[in-house]
Amino acid sequence: MEFEEKTIKRQDIFKGKIFQVAVDDVTLPNGLGEAKRELVFHGGAVSVLAVTPENKLLIVKQYRKAIEKISYEIPAGKLEVGESGSEKEAALRELEEETAYTGDLEPIFEFYTAIGFCNEKIKLYVATNLKKVAHPRPQDDDEVIELFELTYNECMDLVASGAIEDAKTLIALQYFALHFKDK
Amino acid sequence: MEFEEKTIKRQDIFKGKIFQVAVDDVTLPNGLGEAKRELVFHGGAVSVLAVTPENKLLIVKQYRKAIEKISYEIPAGKLEVGESGSEKEAALRELEEETAYTGDLEPIFEFYTAIGFCNEKIKLYVATNLKKVAHPRPQDDDEVIELFELTYNECMDLVASGAIEDAKTLIALQYFALHFKDK
Repeated sequence: MEFEEKTIKRQDIFKGKIFQVAVDDVTLPNGLGEAKRELVFHGGAVSVLAVTPENKLLIVKQYRKAIEKISYEIPAGKLEVGESGSEKEAALRELEEETAYTGDLEPIFEFYTAIGFCNEKIKLYVATNLKKVAHPRPQDDDEVIELFELTYNECMDLVASGAIEDAKTLIALQYFALHFKDK
Repeated sequence: MEFEEKTIKRQDIFKGKIFQVAVDDVTLPNGLGEAKRELVFHGGAVSVLAVTPENKLLIVKQYRKAIEKISYEIPAGKLEVGESGSEKEAALRELEEETAYTGDLEPIFEFYTAIGFCNEKIKLYVATNLKKVAHPRPQDDDEVIELFELTYNECMDLVASGAIEDAKTLIALQYFALHFKDK
């Protein structure tokens, strides 16, 4: 059995600053004919499960236009152009900008967020030995965020209430439950 | 502190069968001025962590054009138009089409996959008491998939090798580790 879909033709639809959109005509494997694939291309992102010495988690509150709602999430940010080789620096930058903390980072997982149509890949780090940065880099000027330090149980209350509905944050919370909770 | 971003103007960019794209001009809160938001609108999807009586997980192998790679994932599928009120039926349909199994479904989590720019929401179910369907509904005619029944450790080997890099599947595997593994 073959799996690969071969590109016959690509139609470029949109080139934005955050993502690009294209529609590919593909040949299906195993003589199944042709199909169209609507695709979103994204430069990738980093995110950080940051655990304080008191075993609390750093959570940022922000408005998300795509869902027209306020959302509680772990700190995260897009990779900037040319930054793909230094995800760890990007994760440290986002942590500092959004929380004014720095720490020791270790990679946990890398995952595609919406694999059916989009190539956005998020690299998730865990940060421990957190320390306050005296003069942190400022937040992006189009971001309004508020920082919380929450226990795991407080985070799970936000999951239950629907205030946390973000895939990367769920992955981070379950990782915490599996690796930190009883420590 | 205010968080909400108010829409000044929406520019429709693309209306596809899988998603739509728009660019919004927004007013930022707290007098921060204006910004642009590039947005992808998606009808949502369902996915199923299906656990066999032998405590194995149903995993499907398929090609994903957005990443130009083969991917191993839990069964999943888009909601069809008008199906938002019956996610459970959609999840049972996808499970049957992709695995030829049916079972008892319970919702676990709902999450936005790429909350920074996209409103795709996936509802994740756990399926137990699995039974083979004698004459299952056929797969979609543009999908080529292969079914595997894997132990949790075999799945984690696929995570380690990079064959599983899908957010919804990671969420399901962590849920299994937290709730099923030692049973």
